Amino acid sequence: MQKIQFQCDYNEGAHPLIMQRLMETNMEQTVGYGEDPHCQRARELIREACQASKADVHFLVGGTQANTTVISHLLRPYQGVIAADTGHINVHETGAIEATGHKVLALPNVDGKISAAQIDAAMKRHYAEDGPEHMVQPGMVYLSFPTEVGTIYSLSELQAIREVCDRYTLPLFVDGARLGYGLCSPMCDVTLPQLAALADVFYIGGTKVGALFGEAVVIVNEGLKRDFRYSIKRHGGMLAKGRLLGIQFETLFADGLYFRIARHAVSQALCIKQVLQAKGFHMLVDSPTNQQFVILPNEVLDRLSQRFVLSPWEPMEGNRTAVRICTSWATRDENVDALIEELNKL
Amino acid sequence: MQKIQFQCDYNEGAHPLIMQRLMETNMEQTVGYGEDPHCQRARELIREACQASKADVHFLVGGTQANTTVISHLLRPYQGVIAADTGHINVHETGAIEATGHKVLALPNVDGKISAAQIDAAMKRHYAEDGPEHMVQPGMVYLSFPTEVGTIYSLSELQAIREVCDRYTLPLFVDGARLGYGLCSPMCDVTLPQLAALADVFYIGGTKVGALFGEAVVIVNEGLKRDFRYSIKRHGGMLAKGRLLGIQFETLFADGLYFRIARHAVSQALCIKQVLQAKGFHMLVDSPTNQQFVILPNEVLDRLSQRFVLSPWEPMEGNRTAVRICTSWATRDENVDALIEELNKL
Amino acid sequence: MQKIQFQCDYNEGAHPLIMQRLMETNMEQTVGYGEDPHCQRARELIREACQASKADVHFLVGGTQANTTVISHLLRPYQGVIAADTGHINVHETGAIEATGHKVLALPNVDGKISAAQIDAAMKRHYAEDGPEHMVQPGMVYLSFPTEVGTIYSLSELQAIREVCDRYTLPLFVDGARLGYGLCSPMCDVTLPQLAALADVFYIGGTKVGALFGEAVVIVNEGLKRDFRYSIKRHGGMLAKGRLLGIQFETLFADGLYFRIARHAVSQALCIKQVLQAKGFHMLVDSPTNQQFVILPNEVLDRLSQRFVLSPWEPMEGNRTAVRICTSWATRDENVDALIEELNKL
Amino acid sequence: MQKIQFQCDYNEGAHPLIMQRLMETNMEQTVGYGEDPHCQRARELIREACQASKADVHFLVGGTQANTTVISHLLRPYQGVIAADTGHINVHETGAIEATGHKVLALPNVDGKISAAQIDAAMKRHYAEDGPEHMVQPGMVYLSFPTEVGTIYSLSELQAIREVCDRYTLPLFVDGARLGYGLCSPMCDVTLPQLAALADVFYIGGTKVGALFGEAVVIVNEGLKRDFRYSIKRHGGMLAKGRLLGIQFETLFADGLYFRIARHAVSQALCIKQVLQAKGFHMLVDSPTNQQFVILPNEVLDRLSQRFVLSPWEPMEGNRTAVRICTSWATRDENVDALIEELNKL
Repeated sequence: MQKIQFQCDYNEGAHPLIMQRLMETNMEQTVGYGEDPHCQRARELIREACQASKADVHFLVGGTQANTTVISHLLRPYQGVIAADTGHINVHETGAIEATGHKVLALPNVDGKISAAQIDAAMKRHYAEDGPEHMVQPGMVYLSFPTEVGTIYSLSELQAIREVCDRYTLPLFVDGARLGYGLCSPMCDVTLPQLAALADVFYIGGTKVGALFGEAVVIVNEGLKRDFRYSIKRHGGMLAKGRLLGIQFETLFADGLYFRIARHAVSQALCIKQVLQAKGFHMLVDSPTNQQFVILPNEVLDRLSQRFVLSPWEPMEGNRTAVRICTSWATRDENVDALIEELNKL
Repeated sequence: MQKIQFQCDYNEGAHPLIMQRLMETNMEQTVGYGEDPHCQRARELIREACQASKADVHFLVGGTQANTTVISHLLRPYQGVIAADTGHINVHETGAIEATGHKVLALPNVDGKISAAQIDAAMKRHYAEDGPEHMVQPGMVYLSFPTEVGTIYSLSELQAIREVCDRYTLPLFVDGARLGYGLCSPMCDVTLPQLAALADVFYIGGTKVGALFGEAVVIVNEGLKRDFRYSIKRHGGMLAKGRLLGIQFETLFADGLYFRIARHAVSQALCIKQVLQAKGFHMLVDSPTNQQFVILPNEVLDRLSQRFVLSPWEPMEGNRTAVRICTSWATRDENVDALIEELNKL
Repeated sequence: MQKIQFQCDYNEGAHPLIMQRLMETNMEQTVGYGEDPHCQRARELIREACQASKADVHFLVGGTQANTTVISHLLRPYQGVIAADTGHINVHETGAIEATGHKVLALPNVDGKISAAQIDAAMKRHYAEDGPEHMVQPGMVYLSFPTEVGTIYSLSELQAIREVCDRYTLPLFVDGARLGYGLCSPMCDVTLPQLAALADVFYIGGTKVGALFGEAVVIVNEGLKRDFRYSIKRHGGMLAKGRLLGIQFETLFADGLYFRIARHAVSQALCIKQVLQAKGFHMLVDSPTNQQFVILPNEVLDRLSQRFVLSPWEPMEGNRTAVRICTSWATRDENVDALIEELNKL
Repeated sequence: MQKIQFQCDYNEGAHPLIMQRLMETNMEQTVGYGEDPHCQRARELIREACQASKADVHFLVGGTQANTTVISHLLRPYQGVIAADTGHINVHETGAIEATGHKVLALPNVDGKISAAQIDAAMKRHYAEDGPEHMVQPGMVYLSFPTEVGTIYSLSELQAIREVCDRYTLPLFVDGARLGYGLCSPMCDVTLPQLAALADVFYIGGTKVGALFGEAVVIVNEGLKRDFRYSIKRHGGMLAKGRLLGIQFETLFADGLYFRIARHAVSQALCIKQVLQAKGFHMLVDSPTNQQFVILPNEVLDRLSQRFVLSPWEPMEGNRTAVRICTSWATRDENVDALIEELNKL
C-alpha cells in the first residue's frame, strides 16, 4: 500500500476544474507566448483581484524562474538583493541569482522573516562606508510571503518595510510561491489588494496552489514594467503554449477558487498542528499556514513514517528531528484524519 | 468564423492521449523534480528508442531553456558555440546564450545548415592566430535538426561534422525542437539511433510534436553527464511537478506515437508543398519537413489570409512575400483540404 | 642585432616626461583608488581639453577593461551593443562583452566603419519584428575612433550617427584606444570638443599614446554617470595606486603633449605610406593614421623581415600578404628612415 | 605640513630599484601581453623561489582581477567558492565573483580564518541534502594569507585544510595580496615552497609589497593550467605592455628584495604593536604581520589624527574605535619613531 504523502505541496497534479478546462480548450487554436485570449482574461481577473487596474501581469512556469527573471530585471549590475538568509533565493536555487551576476545580501532571519529595522541598518551601513563602491550596493528587497518556514508578515511589518524601501528607493519584491496559503491564514491581516499596494512586484504562486505549474508575476510599479517580456525570453521563461498558464489562472481566479482551496489547506494544517501541540510536541516555528514544522522524537518519526511520508527538516539534539508536514489544495480530509488518528494513538 | 491557423506548430494543446494520461494520473502522489516513476519509465523508453542504454535523459520545459542549460553546461567560460547564423540560439532567444557568458560563433548558413568544412576552417583559423587567446575559443558545435527553415542534414553530412568534432574534441549538440518532423521525413536518411550515436548531446522536442510542453535532453557522452541536474536547477528549469514531463514522454514513446504523429504532419506539409509547386510558386528553401516556405505574390497572400493564418517570413522583391506554412500533429486533414482547395481556386 | 619593430604601438614603455614625473612623485603619500590630487588635476585638464566642464572622468588600466565596464554599465540585461563586425569588442576581447551577458550586434563594416543608415536599418528591423522580445534589443552603439584598420569617421558621419542615436535613444560610445592618432591626422575634421559633444561616453587611450598604460573614460551624458565607480570595482578595474593613472594623464594633458606626440607618429606613418604607394604597392585600406596596411608580395615581406618586425595581417591571393606597419609616439625618426631606405632599395 | 600616513599599504609608488629598472628598460622594444623576456625571467625566478619548477606563472594588474580570473577559471558554472565571511571576495570586491556567476559560500571566520573542520562540515552538509542539486555545490576553497585582519594560518592548519580539499577534490586557492608580510612574519612557520606545495593556485602580491602594481598568479596544479591566458583576456586583465609586470617581479625576486622589504615592514609593525600594548591598549585581533588593529579611546584617536592618518576600522562600545595601522615596504623608520614618540607621550 502506498504511503500517504505530506512531505510537500506539489505531490499531485492540478485541481480538477483546471484539468477540465485544459481538456475543453485543448484543440482551440491560439497564438503563442502568452498573447492569447485566455492569458488576457486571466490578467484581467488578477488585476481585479489585486485592485490594481494598471498592473502588468506575466505568467511564468516556476518560482526560481520568476525570482531570477524579476530580480535581474530590477537590479543594476553592481547591485544585490537584500533577503533573509533562509530566503529561497539564498538557499535553494543553486545560485540562480548569482548566475545573473548579483549577490544575495543575506540578513539573519527571525522565524524566516527580516525586519524594516534590519534593512534600514544595512542601508546605513553601506552608505557609511568610506568607499561604498567597494561593496555590493543593496538594490532591492526580497521577501517571501509566506516564508520558507510558513510564517507571514503582518500588515504593519510590511508597511514598515515599505517605508524603509521608499526612504532608499528600493523596490520591494514579494515571492508568493505559496501566496494563497499566506493570505488565507486566519492569522493573516493582509489582503491581496493591500499586498499589491505595498509591493513593487510580487507573484501569485500557482504551482503549489492548485495549478499544474505557473506563477503570475504582477508588476505594480510603472517604472519597472518596460521590456519585461525581453527578460522573460532571455531567461528561457517564454512558454510557447502560453495559454496553458492563462487557462490555469483564469480558472483559479474566475470565482475565487484560488482562495477557497488555499483556505481549506490551511485549515487542515492548523488542525494537524493543534493535535501535535495537544500531544505535547513543540513546533520549530509557529506557522499559521499550510506548512507545519514540528519537533518529533526520532522513534515517533519512525513510527509515523510507516504509513506517512513526512519531510525531515533538520536533526535536533536529543534524538529528535524537526519535521515538515505540508497540506495543499489536494490534501484529502480522510488523509488528515488518518494522520490525526495515528497521532492520537501515540 | 475563426480562421484556420497554419502559422506555427504550437497553436493547440496536446495530443488527446497525453491529455487522457494527465487526467488519469492527476491525483497520484509522487515525488517532485523529475524523480518519479513516470519520468523513470519515460527515460527507459527514450533510451530504448535511441538504442543508447547508458544515456542520461533529462526533461526540460522549453527549447530556449534546453539550449541555454546544455550549452552553458558544456562550455568552459572563455569558449563559444559554433552555430549557423540562422540558428535559433543566434537569432530568437534574446541573447539567452550570451546571458550565460558565451558568444555564439555564427557561420554563414546554406539553407539553414553549416558544413563540416566550415567548422574545420573556423577551427584552423582560430588556432592559426598569433594570439588565439585574444579571441573566443570555439568549444562546441550546435546544429538544429531540422533547421529553422525546415531542412535536414543527411547522414553523410552529420558523419563529416562528427569527424571534424572528433578531430578538435568539440562536443556536438543537436537542437531537436522539431526532431520528429525531421526524422519522419521521407527524405531523411538518419535514424534516431544513428543521431544518438553521432551527437554528444541532443534533445527530442515535445512542445511542437504532441506535448503540451517539454524537451527530452539526451546526454550520450559519458564525460558530459556529471551534475547536469545542478545546471537545470541553476537555470530555473527544474519543474516541481516533473512528472508532467515524464507522463507526456511516456505516452509519446510508449508505442511510437511520437513518430506516427510526426509522420502524418510531414505528409500533410509535403502535400501542400506539391500543390504550391504545381501552381507555379517558388519555395524559398526546399524543405522536406513540416515547415514550408513559399514565395507568394502579396495579392495571393492577402486572399489566402481571409480564411487562413499564415506566417509572413520576409518581404521579397516584386511585391512578394516569403510565407511560412506549418503543419503539426494537430493539423486536421479537413483544414489541409480547405487550404489546397483555396490554392486550386487561384 | 635586434630588429627594428613596427608591428604595434605598444612596444616601448612610456614617454620620458611621464617616467620623470613617476620618479619625482614616487614617495609621495596619497590616498588610493583614484581619489588623489593627481587624478583630480588630470580630470580637470581633460575636461578642459574636451570643453566639457561637467563630464565625469575615470581612469582605467586597459582598453578591454574600459569597453567591458562601460558597455555593461550602459546596457539593460536584455540589450546588445551595435558594432562593426571588425570592432575590437567583436573580435579581439575573448568574449569579454558576452562575459557580462550581452550580445555584440555586429554590422558589416566598410573600411572598419559602420554608418548611420546601417544603424537606422537595424533598429527598424528590430521593431518591425512581430515579437521583438524574442531578439536582443539594440541598446547602444559602439564605434572605434580611429577604427581597428586605422580609418576615421568624418564629422558629418558622426553627426549622422548621433542623429540616429537620438532618434532611438541609443547611447553612443566611442572606443578611443588610439584617439590621439585619429584626432591628429591631417585628414581628420573632428576635434576633441566636437567628439565630446557627440558621444555619450568615450575614452582617451593612453596605453598606445605615450603612457605606460591607462585609458581615460569620459562620461558626458549626465544620465549615465551614476555609480560608475561601482562598475569599475566590480570589473576589477579599480587600481589601488590610482595616482599612477592620474600622474600619466596629468603629464599628457598639461601642455598638449598628448597631441604633439600623436601628430608626430601620424606624420611618420603617412611618410611610410607615401613611399609604399610610390613603389606601387596597394594599401589594404586607405588609413590616414598611425597604422598602415599594405599588401606586399611575400618575397618583399621576407626581405623586409630580415631587418624589421612587421605584423602580417592576413594572407592574400597571389603569394601576397597584407601587412600592418605601425608607428607610435616612441618611433624614432632614424628607424623610419631605415625602413624607407630599405623600401627604396626594392 | 602633510600628515604621516599609516592607513594602508599602498600610499606610495614603487621601491626605488623597481623605478630604476623601469627607467633603464623604458625604450627597449618588446612584444606585448606578457610574452617578453622580462616576464620569462620573472617567471623563472618565481618558480625557483617556490621550488615549483613546473608551475605556470601569470602576471595580473590587481587583486580583485586575480581573484575573479582564478575563481571563474576553476569553478564549474553551478559551483561556489568557500571563503571566510570576512574574505576580501565576500566583502570588498563589489560582487566581482558573483559577476562571473558564482556564489561565495561564506563560513564564519575566527580572527579572519576558517578551519579544515568547517570546510569538512560544509561539504558533509551539502551532500547530506536530499537534493543537493538545489543548492550551490562547493567547488573550491579560498583563503587569504595573511588574512584581511593580518592573521596567518600555521603550517598545520594549512595541511589540515589541504587534507580536506583532497578528500573532496576541492582546489585550494590562496589570495596572497600581502603574501610577503605573512611569510616574513617571525611568527610564520610556513615557507613559500611549502605554500606552493599545499595550494593548487595562489598569488604573490606585488601591489602592496614593493611594486607599482601587479600580482603573480602561480598555478601549481597541472590540471588547472589549460587556457588560463584566455581567462585573463576575457576578464580584461591582459596588460598590453605586459613587460611592466615582468620587470617589477624580476626586480623583486632577483635577489630576495621581496622578502627583505616585507620583513622590514613587519618588524616596524610589531614594534608599534609592542608600544601599543605596553601603553595598555587592547588589540582587536592578534596580528603578527604588517597590519595592526588596535582599540583606541576616541580622544586618543583624535589626538593621534592631528599628525598621523590612521584607518578607523569599526566603532566599538565605550567611545572607542578599532583602528588599523599599516606599515609597508615604504614606511620610513623616522615615521615609525614619530608615531612611537607620540604614543609614549599619551
